[in-house]
Amino acid sequence: MTIKAAIYGASGYTGQELTRILSGHPQVELIAVTSRRFAGKAVSDVFPSLYGLTTLKYEDAAPDAIAGMCDVVFLALPHGVSMDIAPAFVKAGKKVIDLSADYRIRNLTTYEKWYAKHKSPGLLADAVYGLPELYRSAIETSSLIANPGCYPTSIILGLAPVLKNGLVDPSTILADSASGVSGAGRDPLIGSLFCEVDGGFKAYKVGKHRHTPEIEQELAVLAGEVFAVTFTPHLLPVKRGILSTLYATLTNEISVSELCELYASFYGAEAFVRVCPEGVYPNISSVAGSNFCDIGLAVDSRTRRIIVLSAIDNLIKGAAGQAVQNMNIMCSLPEESGLKTAPLYP
Amino acid sequence: MTIKAAIYGASGYTGQELTRILSGHPQVELIAVTSRRFAGKAVSDVFPSLYGLTTLKYEDAAPDAIAGMCDVVFLALPHGVSMDIAPAFVKAGKKVIDLSADYRIRNLTTYEKWYAKHKSPGLLADAVYGLPELYRSAIETSSLIANPGCYPTSIILGLAPVLKNGLVDPSTILADSASGVSGAGRDPLIGSLFCEVDGGFKAYKVGKHRHTPEIEQELAVLAGEVFAVTFTPHLLPVKRGILSTLYATLTNEISVSELCELYASFYGAEAFVRVCPEGVYPNISSVAGSNFCDIGLAVDSRTRRIIVLSAIDNLIKGAAGQAVQNMNIMCSLPEESGLKTAPLYP
Amino acid sequence: MTIKAAIYGASGYTGQELTRILSGHPQVELIAVTSRRFAGKAVSDVFPSLYGLTTLKYEDAAPDAIAGMCDVVFLALPHGVSMDIAPAFVKAGKKVIDLSADYRIRNLTTYEKWYAKHKSPGLLADAVYGLPELYRSAIETSSLIANPGCYPTSIILGLAPVLKNGLVDPSTILADSASGVSGAGRDPLIGSLFCEVDGGFKAYKVGKHRHTPEIEQELAVLAGEVFAVTFTPHLLPVKRGILSTLYATLTNEISVSELCELYASFYGAEAFVRVCPEGVYPNISSVAGSNFCDIGLAVDSRTRRIIVLSAIDNLIKGAAGQAVQNMNIMCSLPEESGLKTAPLYP
Amino acid sequence: MTIKAAIYGASGYTGQELTRILSGHPQVELIAVTSRRFAGKAVSDVFPSLYGLTTLKYEDAAPDAIAGMCDVVFLALPHGVSMDIAPAFVKAGKKVIDLSADYRIRNLTTYEKWYAKHKSPGLLADAVYGLPELYRSAIETSSLIANPGCYPTSIILGLAPVLKNGLVDPSTILADSASGVSGAGRDPLIGSLFCEVDGGFKAYKVGKHRHTPEIEQELAVLAGEVFAVTFTPHLLPVKRGILSTLYATLTNEISVSELCELYASFYGAEAFVRVCPEGVYPNISSVAGSNFCDIGLAVDSRTRRIIVLSAIDNLIKGAAGQAVQNMNIMCSLPEESGLKTAPLYP
Repeated sequence: MTIKAAIYGASGYTGQELTRILSGHPQVELIAVTSRRFAGKAVSDVFPSLYGLTTLKYEDAAPDAIAGMCDVVFLALPHGVSMDIAPAFVKAGKKVIDLSADYRIRNLTTYEKWYAKHKSPGLLADAVYGLPELYRSAIETSSLIANPGCYPTSIILGLAPVLKNGLVDPSTILADSASGVSGAGRDPLIGSLFCEVDGGFKAYKVGKHRHTPEIEQELAVLAGEVFAVTFTPHLLPVKRGILSTLYATLTNEISVSELCELYASFYGAEAFVRVCPEGVYPNISSVAGSNFCDIGLAVDSRTRRIIVLSAIDNLIKGAAGQAVQNMNIMCSLPEESGLKTAPLYP
Repeated sequence: MTIKAAIYGASGYTGQELTRILSGHPQVELIAVTSRRFAGKAVSDVFPSLYGLTTLKYEDAAPDAIAGMCDVVFLALPHGVSMDIAPAFVKAGKKVIDLSADYRIRNLTTYEKWYAKHKSPGLLADAVYGLPELYRSAIETSSLIANPGCYPTSIILGLAPVLKNGLVDPSTILADSASGVSGAGRDPLIGSLFCEVDGGFKAYKVGKHRHTPEIEQELAVLAGEVFAVTFTPHLLPVKRGILSTLYATLTNEISVSELCELYASFYGAEAFVRVCPEGVYPNISSVAGSNFCDIGLAVDSRTRRIIVLSAIDNLIKGAAGQAVQNMNIMCSLPEESGLKTAPLYP
Repeated sequence: MTIKAAIYGASGYTGQELTRILSGHPQVELIAVTSRRFAGKAVSDVFPSLYGLTTLKYEDAAPDAIAGMCDVVFLALPHGVSMDIAPAFVKAGKKVIDLSADYRIRNLTTYEKWYAKHKSPGLLADAVYGLPELYRSAIETSSLIANPGCYPTSIILGLAPVLKNGLVDPSTILADSASGVSGAGRDPLIGSLFCEVDGGFKAYKVGKHRHTPEIEQELAVLAGEVFAVTFTPHLLPVKRGILSTLYATLTNEISVSELCELYASFYGAEAFVRVCPEGVYPNISSVAGSNFCDIGLAVDSRTRRIIVLSAIDNLIKGAAGQAVQNMNIMCSLPEESGLKTAPLYP
Repeated sequence: MTIKAAIYGASGYTGQELTRILSGHPQVELIAVTSRRFAGKAVSDVFPSLYGLTTLKYEDAAPDAIAGMCDVVFLALPHGVSMDIAPAFVKAGKKVIDLSADYRIRNLTTYEKWYAKHKSPGLLADAVYGLPELYRSAIETSSLIANPGCYPTSIILGLAPVLKNGLVDPSTILADSASGVSGAGRDPLIGSLFCEVDGGFKAYKVGKHRHTPEIEQELAVLAGEVFAVTFTPHLLPVKRGILSTLYATLTNEISVSELCELYASFYGAEAFVRVCPEGVYPNISSVAGSNFCDIGLAVDSRTRRIIVLSAIDNLIKGAAGQAVQNMNIMCSLPEESGLKTAPLYP
């Protein structure tokens, strides 16, 4: 069986990454990629790395034109734009994987407080939060996936085992994260210039990043209670990767080795979560190029806090790779299909 | 007046930075630099950047030989080695600025728990912790300065105003820091290789870094009480710079603008602390090459936490620059002398 | 059919890259990896990126012990060490792919002038220079492959079409190349430290690099005459990639578009050589992570020189990937098997 | 004596660098900086690194308004814009240092072939090419300086001694250069984004870069004859620095040590040219942050070519530093004034 897939908004870094992964996916035929900016240009003219790997050209096509050709559509569009496009594909009976935030927040008021007026709130109830490790069975039968944000993916996977097991006080949770520059996309902004980023490190949108409500929504499900989280994103001088350093105060004592066992057991069957051995902490360069989330664990017994380190490639497990993982689940393909690439190290 | 200065252990990155700064210092004559490894070699053979700026050669000289020639000696030696050397210079009546940790920890038991057996505990009581913003008057009359660690400098300066004013609950303090690779020195270690570091980001020595007791000692002085701190260092793929992201829960409400005013007032007279305007957060690349500590402030009213961002150049304000600032104070020179270089941006 | 493969000297960057590629190769079972330094350690302890992808441990095993278990052995050893090991495997009837320089230079005197005394000169006549684009049929039947050097691969592929067609004056050839740091290996050398490399760019071994005789040997075969080449290697602050900028004076006029056609035709059937469209020049970041060699072309009509730009990933097409390509050819597997990974961009 | 200086077009990287250097210059008062884009904003809002070092705000002021206040004006404007502005300052009797290419090419036809129609050709005869090492006495009495391009500075200084002494065949000269990204300025272009540059290396504008006629003009003066040069620029993943690797065929034999002596003698009195010892090649990171040009030398006796390596900081000796050096000469200040900063290494 071959799945026919299309990518809407394919000329950004996430769209490129989807193009790259789907071009090498053994059960997928990529049939269309859209881009207003680069319409008419070959993909390989915009991304010479893909020369010889795809002969597609960017189109500026309406959803109806695309929907007729494909089984699955990936929306790699900015927040607020996806919800203009998604309904047409859903209506046409296609599987939709939306990489924007538009269908991630179940509570409409919360979405509109952090983002903007919602244009298709009627679909919110149908959307499934596409984190396979937590929502696999719902994903199987869904036709609208809200693919998780990059920071939330690293944070939720990092905290799920302790929250599910009631080991920490949720009100003490604090997420200190750092992301590579590709997270800011390919728009030509002064702040994303090499000379502005290289050699630098800074926090941004402190206490105000839009991923906060998404993080809080999912951690609340895990903890069984609602609470606020302090989330501080930083900009790293690297192309790919997110490391989240997560802090929480323990409700009961636990040793590091017990913690490592708990996580290993929680994620034992997962193909894309790797729990580091005791005393080993993940490095974003050890997951770059792969769909892995690596998790390391520490206990600071002097302060009764646990420290969880969670690393992903923001463009893969934090975006395009997770989207393909969701597609595999929705289409009853092997979950690792097209995603077996080992990290590229060094 | 010209101060005659010598550097013990001058071939590491900190030693090089001292050499660079002192070679351009208008009131200093650098008369000797030592290095076992490179004895006999010209400084400019080891560091071609200094070609034409100094004609000194590295010597493998005993303290007595050096002491006879200089007014001030800088010890840029590893922990455990400084205390073999410092006593001879103190005895000879020279001003000693020790950049190792050997005289930083006032409590002998604490030192020996985190480091090793102390070989000259008798000098501990004479040593002054060389953070000019907090200990200026004691530094003026001291002859043995324990120059602060790089992480502690960023953390202590970042938290001093709120602790002095009792605005936060000390037990909630959490320091999440990230340092450039020069902090690991110039020893050829696999972990410091370009291919191991570039594109990466990871935590290390989580909950176990030796700067912890130094941080706790000085924060306790500021808070007037003893408490434990969670400290998580990370390795950044940059050459220079430390950013500390500091968290604490407020005891009373305060707005960001009030907080900015408090900090601006606390550091108003300081030449080397720059408090960012409200909404601006420091970037390590904006202090690189300078002796500045830049501090930015945020309040997360949803969780009642403050977030302090504190950035320094680890080799300058975190080591060599601060050491020269201490020398200036000890020698009654203008405090900014030799340290007026603007950050090198981009 | 499954090929049983072993890697001798597997803990350097090239050895790691072979491990990574062979672990994902559909027709290969990697059965042993050796390392003196890390004997007894799991591969994934040394390279956490490979955690979950291989369960092998490094062994310190003699050739005889390994030879009994495998069909093919890769020697990722330093020059001078391979020739101690290769004869045993050849004698045991195994296919040997040597990634050192030991069997690359056909003229014994030349080898000994640039390297050292040869310890198994008797095998020189049996060795095939493993550049598939030029020696495919000889590789098919060979049992000892001298896998090309990284610089030579980029230079020879870049110049083959014009030399074969007699379009340039060989005496004017000049190769100006730049390599990422992984080319220097994983040994902890001061010169490979992040702080020494980042932000830098320099030439090294000017006119004296050991790849010179290898370049000259193969260019002479192509040109049908012997000549000397000026070769200047530089060190780039990147992990992977070589770009060679090649200059030669034209013997007859030719336009860029004719040149592009000539190259496209010369490499038309090759899976791993991509000739850039006219006016496009290759970037090492567009081949990183892949086995591609990208070639771009320019004609400076004002000086009658052609300028050829040739880019590879030094660890893949310049080492491990080319070695696997050779194995595929020797073992009658599809030449792209295990090597279909797209470049990782950005 | 205090010189009153203004900078026209001060919000790019070159303008920032001029602001930084002039703010610390002991004999200069910086009285105005202009920027259309950032008019009304404080310099330190645009460049936080300069917070506390200047309180100037960007103005959008006409030349007449600025001319009345200053003795010297620096034009850090794009090519084609400087010539709109320069005449007003010249007419007002001010010293003008133009960092664009508008007055560098003495031959009007050549300028218009490579650039565009010239709008003030009448000033061409008055302009002095501001390379102090070659034109110092003319600079002293000039009131319009054409500050050299970054690539030409590195190339001309690298070749002057051999051309002046007739040691090489000019027709064989070939300049292979690589520049840091700051050379492309601070405009938000996709090609200057961190993700596009980091990990990459590529040639651009091969055989077509606009610095070619400037290089040929000055090399012709040195050689006493007209000839064409092959010039290939590359983009380096670093913020600052240019390394030029220069090739030429010798007309007579010369040893490296003789060559080193020749260069050392040629540049003996120069404060900002450092000739490396035999066997040492310059690294751009050893000049970054300084006004130095470091030159290394090799002879490839096998091919009778010399290879000259020439390194500068493109923003300093390649732009702002050289401009200040010119100002010092024009204003009879010590030539090193404001430029004594040592390179920032590592």
